[in-house]
Amino acid sequence: MSISAFDHPFLSGLLGDEEVSAYFSLEADIRAMLTFEAALAKAEARHGVIPQEAAQRIAKVCAEFLPDISSLKSATAMDGVVVPDLVKQLRKAVGGEAAQHLHFGATSQDVIDSSLMIRLKAVAFLFTGRLFAVTSALGTLEKQCGSNRLMGHTRMQAAIPITVSDRLRTWRDPLDKYRDRLTQESFPIQFGGAVGTLEKLGSKAAAVRASLAQELDLADEAQWQSQRAKIAELANLFSLISGSLGKIGQDIALLAQAGDEIELCGGGGSSAMPHKQNPVAAETLVSLARFNAVQLSGIHQSLLHEQERSGAAWTLEWLLLPPMVMATAASLQLARELIGKVKRLGVTS
Amino acid sequence: MSISAFDHPFLSGLLGDEEVSAYFSLEADIRAMLTFEAALAKAEARHGVIPQEAAQRIAKVCAEFLPDISSLKSATAMDGVVVPDLVKQLRKAVGGEAAQHLHFGATSQDVIDSSLMIRLKAVAFLFTGRLFAVTSALGTLEKQCGSNRLMGHTRMQAAIPITVSDRLRTWRDPLDKYRDRLTQESFPIQFGGAVGTLEKLGSKAAAVRASLAQELDLADEAQWQSQRAKIAELANLFSLISGSLGKIGQDIALLAQAGDEIELCGGGGSSAMPHKQNPVAAETLVSLARFNAVQLSGIHQSLLHEQERSGAAWTLEWLLLPPMVMATAASLQLARELIGKVKRLGVTS
Amino acid sequence: MSISAFDHPFLSGLLGDEEVSAYFSLEADIRAMLTFEAALAKAEARHGVIPQEAAQRIAKVCAEFLPDISSLKSATAMDGVVVPDLVKQLRKAVGGEAAQHLHFGATSQDVIDSSLMIRLKAVAFLFTGRLFAVTSALGTLEKQCGSNRLMGHTRMQAAIPITVSDRLRTWRDPLDKYRDRLTQESFPIQFGGAVGTLEKLGSKAAAVRASLAQELDLADEAQWQSQRAKIAELANLFSLISGSLGKIGQDIALLAQAGDEIELCGGGGSSAMPHKQNPVAAETLVSLARFNAVQLSGIHQSLLHEQERSGAAWTLEWLLLPPMVMATAASLQLARELIGKVKRLGVTS
Amino acid sequence: MSISAFDHPFLSGLLGDEEVSAYFSLEADIRAMLTFEAALAKAEARHGVIPQEAAQRIAKVCAEFLPDISSLKSATAMDGVVVPDLVKQLRKAVGGEAAQHLHFGATSQDVIDSSLMIRLKAVAFLFTGRLFAVTSALGTLEKQCGSNRLMGHTRMQAAIPITVSDRLRTWRDPLDKYRDRLTQESFPIQFGGAVGTLEKLGSKAAAVRASLAQELDLADEAQWQSQRAKIAELANLFSLISGSLGKIGQDIALLAQAGDEIELCGGGGSSAMPHKQNPVAAETLVSLARFNAVQLSGIHQSLLHEQERSGAAWTLEWLLLPPMVMATAASLQLARELIGKVKRLGVTS
Repeated sequence: MSISAFDHPFLSGLLGDEEVSAYFSLEADIRAMLTFEAALAKAEARHGVIPQEAAQRIAKVCAEFLPDISSLKSATAMDGVVVPDLVKQLRKAVGGEAAQHLHFGATSQDVIDSSLMIRLKAVAFLFTGRLFAVTSALGTLEKQCGSNRLMGHTRMQAAIPITVSDRLRTWRDPLDKYRDRLTQESFPIQFGGAVGTLEKLGSKAAAVRASLAQELDLADEAQWQSQRAKIAELANLFSLISGSLGKIGQDIALLAQAGDEIELCGGGGSSAMPHKQNPVAAETLVSLARFNAVQLSGIHQSLLHEQERSGAAWTLEWLLLPPMVMATAASLQLARELIGKVKRLGVTS
Repeated sequence: MSISAFDHPFLSGLLGDEEVSAYFSLEADIRAMLTFEAALAKAEARHGVIPQEAAQRIAKVCAEFLPDISSLKSATAMDGVVVPDLVKQLRKAVGGEAAQHLHFGATSQDVIDSSLMIRLKAVAFLFTGRLFAVTSALGTLEKQCGSNRLMGHTRMQAAIPITVSDRLRTWRDPLDKYRDRLTQESFPIQFGGAVGTLEKLGSKAAAVRASLAQELDLADEAQWQSQRAKIAELANLFSLISGSLGKIGQDIALLAQAGDEIELCGGGGSSAMPHKQNPVAAETLVSLARFNAVQLSGIHQSLLHEQERSGAAWTLEWLLLPPMVMATAASLQLARELIGKVKRLGVTS
Repeated sequence: MSISAFDHPFLSGLLGDEEVSAYFSLEADIRAMLTFEAALAKAEARHGVIPQEAAQRIAKVCAEFLPDISSLKSATAMDGVVVPDLVKQLRKAVGGEAAQHLHFGATSQDVIDSSLMIRLKAVAFLFTGRLFAVTSALGTLEKQCGSNRLMGHTRMQAAIPITVSDRLRTWRDPLDKYRDRLTQESFPIQFGGAVGTLEKLGSKAAAVRASLAQELDLADEAQWQSQRAKIAELANLFSLISGSLGKIGQDIALLAQAGDEIELCGGGGSSAMPHKQNPVAAETLVSLARFNAVQLSGIHQSLLHEQERSGAAWTLEWLLLPPMVMATAASLQLARELIGKVKRLGVTS
Repeated sequence: MSISAFDHPFLSGLLGDEEVSAYFSLEADIRAMLTFEAALAKAEARHGVIPQEAAQRIAKVCAEFLPDISSLKSATAMDGVVVPDLVKQLRKAVGGEAAQHLHFGATSQDVIDSSLMIRLKAVAFLFTGRLFAVTSALGTLEKQCGSNRLMGHTRMQAAIPITVSDRLRTWRDPLDKYRDRLTQESFPIQFGGAVGTLEKLGSKAAAVRASLAQELDLADEAQWQSQRAKIAELANLFSLISGSLGKIGQDIALLAQAGDEIELCGGGGSSAMPHKQNPVAAETLVSLARFNAVQLSGIHQSLLHEQERSGAAWTLEWLLLPPMVMATAASLQLARELIGKVKRLGVTS
């Protein structure tokens, strides 16, 4: 629990985000995976693929099932994915004939990628709200100081004066675009079976997938288990968000260094120099922007899925995506707080 | 002329693309920058910012002007950008009173970013055609072998059989999506003046920018000189394209290694083993995909533009973007050729 | 505790490493920071900078002090570093006149970077042992199968036969070099004070630093708070290790796909295809190699420390380095296990 | 000739370096490859592998041979490497029985990697000289201004005063270390034959390789065709150099923005603001540092060579390494020039 600064015992004070990290908790992941299994059974029952009773029994068990985590952990070491053991435990809990109808026609990736989409969809919704909070804070700042004079800088040299509104426009516009992008983003079901052909569902495959997507409130799309553009698109958008917020942070750090054109409250203290007020949040926005820019490269490396499914490329995604989500979440939180701490920007002409 | 494999004397045989590299030639860049200056004068004259005669004189000179390149080169060493010296040379050629109306209200970045957008727009159009050529080749292959049996592989292990059509669908779908994306992509004018405020144009700024955009057939948008999301979006799309083509290349290399499920013609020779037929194009698609995935990280690093304009972040873009475009171009060319060399895929059941 | 796959409740079964992650636990970090403060007091007392009694009192308190973690967390949110609050808590515990002698002349970065070095030195020692375990396993495999015939492959095509020993040599040699490198690596003290000049220690600065380094069994070097080459060197070495192990993993995955030249026991199971034996560890080695290759880019980005100390670049290191260490640790563990599972390599001629 | 900014018609004024790019010219590469073939023949003749007359004939032809470049280019498109066609052309020129003794026992990678090492060795020698020039310039600056007062900054905030010497020490020390590293660097021959086993040379393999290495003044080491740690080590060192120079550039850009503590001559001009003096070289150092940090990630990705030789990973190196060398060369040149332009640093107390 200390490897990632995002959930580190004390670094998480600066970099953590409990609201968003909750979606990457064990509980949230298990819950989403069980929701998938219950919805799959329901969809398959609706189309006569499995008996209604089985679907009801499966739904009932999934609703309250608590898996043996240590068993999941040791099985993941062996299988590389958690699903085989989770399904095994679940079958035991379901019992009887219904057990055989659980997870019918599905594969590990269907469960894990769909669980991810269910949670990313919720996170994206939170992010749209946070983007709005940041732009609102910028709007408030504009009301206060918009007409103030600010020295425009190009190539890190004083150029000619602009207004605070001019600078704020360059901070706000990209965020508005990202909010639109997030709002339009679709979050697709992943359902393809062993090799992406849903071979066990025969002619009912499309219908079952459509019902499953509807159940989970995800978009109904063909399997994308070896086609990861959606993941890369989202990662790119996350890095755009943290990148544009990092630009704001860098600008504020530069303003704070010069000192005369900004008044910040609540800067950070130093163990050696009590007089200092460090623009900690501003610097951290830069760190998070560069962090996401780095991770994005790995997400694009993982586009090279071999054949029907790549264990290597998929596992690489698991290592990269949750920290990117957290970096974006922390950026949004810190940006809102930082802008709120700007008591004055520019100088009254 | 040998630093980049994309225009290397012999490596360009494998990695080069004359049609696309033409858009990054000295001539194309100069031509586009001169087109910008002429269009700016015309737009400013239309709105009474400068005299019509001046605009006509400027247009006439820009139409045939050939700058002194060695002067541009030494000036770029000094200024970090080519525009100050180009405008100086151009002013001399225009002469008289008109010279003072040249480049009025504009800054280096307006010229360079707009020139880039003019050329990227043309390249994007080429890419849509190439994406279509690749998917057409896949379509032809499907007609020939679609019903053939192919062993599905997951985690690099034989799983259960699929059809060639199943595999081809996973190759083609992402490419269709990228073609749609490219077609919808907008290419904005960059016009902001010294610090992005078009201060010299006063109340006519918006009108002049709109006319300029129309002249250059670019989208009319507010200046984005310190907001590089558009560049990052395009780079992301380029890397998605090469990434999905790299997945095809990797799959074909794996098929070629096993040997029984694919028949390729025209593989590469070896200096040590005349009997070998290397799937060179397939491997190169993997190289280009990984190359773009790496570069994308730098493009996102360059989102952190300081203040009104960053020389550091902007110069970083210049180092990264043209090679990304070329890698994408080469990927599209190689993919089409490679798919055309597939004589058989899968086995007839 | 679920953001990083390295300490995820079930993914850590595959990717975790308790022995190494212990060095990145809260306890280990706090313990190392308190050790620094005690050693600093002792060194300063030895050179008459602070009273012996104060040093003794400080050492006594540091030996058993348990900080208030929630206070550290909220203070880190404010200060961007944990040290100011840790020192404040510690001063309170030390009490009296001795409290003022605690942390004398030091700054946050001295404590945090030195704590990191103390722990990285221990981890490097573990890694040398693990590299030896991997090469030993390769040695055992060579004894069993070294003379077996293996088809040599170049450009993913069968070339001409080699022996298993030939292949194993290319797997082992780099690891031997890395072990030598790790053994020779030095781990320097970081001690510079507020701005790297140890201004509070005057003429005794060098002597105090030497004693402090000796106390902590670290190399005595000038402060490196804005010069991060040592961090980048270590990160590069970690990525070389995981990269060479990733090459082994990729080779084994390719062998496992062909199937005839390798016999592996204990592969992973599939939720859809019980018959499969997935080379999970081999694929995971590839994932971890690509992960570290990605992170290394960020470590080199963080070489750009502004002025005497950069909060942005330093915080970026905190986000990147611990996961790189864990990826390297997991690679070493998985490689040893994987090689142990190879029952046969090549075919008896 | 315009894709890479390093040899772009006008951008090369800022980013180019003729002295170093010469080593990546067509001529230099061909010359080094021909030198390899001649040295190989000589070494093989010395050990009785081929006739002395053949070796003499081969040496004579290699000394003056000018290949048909367009043929090399089209063949590279086919083979993925230039060597098969180069050897074919060379055999024709050598003629007679000697032709069959040309390139005996060697493979493409032996020629290309050894040619690279011959040229990187020369470049490394140049870099040591340039590092010395930079540190000398820093020494001169210290003589002039070392005792001047400079405000120390941490976390981009004024902290407490330091001397110019204090700052210069943090700029210079890493460069001294890199120079030592470069001086100690070994540059190994690559000689392994088709699959790395030199199978055609039998018991004479080691002796021939030793003589070949001696002929080419390279280190005699076992083949490393699938073990690319040496390439990654050099790339890491290049990125460390540009990274530390980028830190100097960033510090100077920050000093130039504040303005009072530095006096720079010969800054860059602006097309919109004639009054500005842009610290172009300082910003460019930052761009080049970030560029290399990005590329390094790809070099580490290419550590994952499949089997005896990977076309994909090797081609990726070709795309990444020459630009990294050029970025390092340009950094060294710009840093020396920039430091020479510092007329004053700090303020006299």
